[in-house]
Amino acid sequence: MAEKIYDMIIAGAGPAGITAAVYAARKKLDFVVISQDIGGQASWSGDIENYTGWQFVTGPELTMKFEEHMKAFNIAARIPEKIIELAAEGQGVRVSTDTGTYLAKSVIIATGKRPRELRVPGEQEYKNRGVTYCATCDGPLFKNKTVAVIGGGNSALDAALQLMKICPAVYLIVNGKELTGDPVMRETIQKAANVEILYETDVQRIRGEQFVAHLDVATQGKSRAFEAQGVFVEIGLNPNSDFAHQLIMNERKEIVVDAFNRTSVPGIFAAGDVTNVPEKQIIIACGEGAKACLTAFHHISTTRFEQEWH
Amino acid sequence: MAEKIYDMIIAGAGPAGITAAVYAARKKLDFVVISQDIGGQASWSGDIENYTGWQFVTGPELTMKFEEHMKAFNIAARIPEKIIELAAEGQGVRVSTDTGTYLAKSVIIATGKRPRELRVPGEQEYKNRGVTYCATCDGPLFKNKTVAVIGGGNSALDAALQLMKICPAVYLIVNGKELTGDPVMRETIQKAANVEILYETDVQRIRGEQFVAHLDVATQGKSRAFEAQGVFVEIGLNPNSDFAHQLIMNERKEIVVDAFNRTSVPGIFAAGDVTNVPEKQIIIACGEGAKACLTAFHHISTTRFEQEWH
Repeated sequence: MAEKIYDMIIAGAGPAGITAAVYAARKKLDFVVISQDIGGQASWSGDIENYTGWQFVTGPELTMKFEEHMKAFNIAARIPEKIIELAAEGQGVRVSTDTGTYLAKSVIIATGKRPRELRVPGEQEYKNRGVTYCATCDGPLFKNKTVAVIGGGNSALDAALQLMKICPAVYLIVNGKELTGDPVMRETIQKAANVEILYETDVQRIRGEQFVAHLDVATQGKSRAFEAQGVFVEIGLNPNSDFAHQLIMNERKEIVVDAFNRTSVPGIFAAGDVTNVPEKQIIIACGEGAKACLTAFHHISTTRFEQEWH
Repeated sequence: MAEKIYDMIIAGAGPAGITAAVYAARKKLDFVVISQDIGGQASWSGDIENYTGWQFVTGPELTMKFEEHMKAFNIAARIPEKIIELAAEGQGVRVSTDTGTYLAKSVIIATGKRPRELRVPGEQEYKNRGVTYCATCDGPLFKNKTVAVIGGGNSALDAALQLMKICPAVYLIVNGKELTGDPVMRETIQKAANVEILYETDVQRIRGEQFVAHLDVATQGKSRAFEAQGVFVEIGLNPNSDFAHQLIMNERKEIVVDAFNRTSVPGIFAAGDVTNVPEKQIIIACGEGAKACLTAFHHISTTRFEQEWH
């Protein structure tokens, strides 16, 4: 018997993958979602105020709604299952996972990113209880509180720029001897009265009770502790793109897509945080997932597949 | 007194504009939304099953939620007000409307599209009661019903392709002598047993009671009537981009943007259906609106504005 050929395989079940799946279901495509988890970064986001239509929802709540939406369409999902490799085969793509292989006319990669962690004591314990990885998502919730931003690059500066407008004191904890972000942002932050920049400083421990309360740091080996109710870890994110090494990526290992979510290989599309599209935002990932699915649908509809592919 | 300079002006209050506004509010920008209406195309969409997180919501309901979200942030909006012209001025943009002028460091154009209408009797009367302009949005709601698709181009073929899978009979009403869409789609539709293509045919009247029930057409002058519960008008959309004639547009008068929502003029960004980004989908427009706002925020943060612009 000939091997089954799917119309589409969706890798990842965060906002981008789930939205792609909802669109694929409505197009009556024969497809399966393969993912290591459901919700991705959204599932451990704090309070969300910028998913249009909901004035307030938590990451876990929104993830549950997404999951219910997927279930309402009876979407086939293999979770947890990890994708190991993609390879062109015939007119489509072979997807190899840790438990099997699949053949599909199109693949949408929506495997997201994982934040680089500090790897200090207290970080895991206070995740979502003061420790956060996204100033755009969570910043406004720390209004009138003292916060620390960890990092010295653009995303740390962007976080500091946002937080200094609403927080009485912002500590910017920089590993190196200087800031590396955009000059204009750097200057604004350096001039700000309520931002204290600590150079050549490492975080040693995050402490608190129910929520974060203190931060222990060391500047050139000299220890110091200060109060902080929020810790914004902004030292970068790693895209989950290792299995897709044949695609063109940028220097950050993000998959390069065009405005239509096409990658460098026909039949392979990508959406959300795993791509070079900036900003790790749920509503953006959802939009990109929908676009990727519709572009892939167009690809399937307009490609003259060989007989055995029907 | 020097003229006020806004950080941002958002043109349009559909899904893209409102999402941009929510992001701008969270960034504490000094901005105003200028629009002719609220909700745009979404406000007259039928039932929506693909806004991720809501399994089912109507266009008017979703529009109300968007509006409430905007109000929760106390967003300044001038509605209805019509933008007449954009012009570069200083390091920003002057926006002229039918009632005034504004100066801003950045402008986001999210003025959307309006569908080209048939302009036949019954069309206005049965809008959202059988007459629809978006197969991707509303197609699945016409399962097991007889429908007519009006048009012969790609969007009409795409509509027919979707509907033939779920409807017992699909009439494709084509103005010209042949279909003009993609060859593969054309062939599939021409082979389909449940699609009847009427060439050189005009719609004359849409009839019904509560909902659409009949369609009167004329083929080369010869009249004919048939039953149909759904009429999909797919003869194109016109972008609301006339006031932005200085920007690079494609042949459909859509504003060309890159993956970061930049237009050909620095400081002017665009999002949603008014751009060359394909597919008229609410979740896509929302994502693009968020992206445009964040790119514009980055532009404002990294541009060295002259003294008088601060």
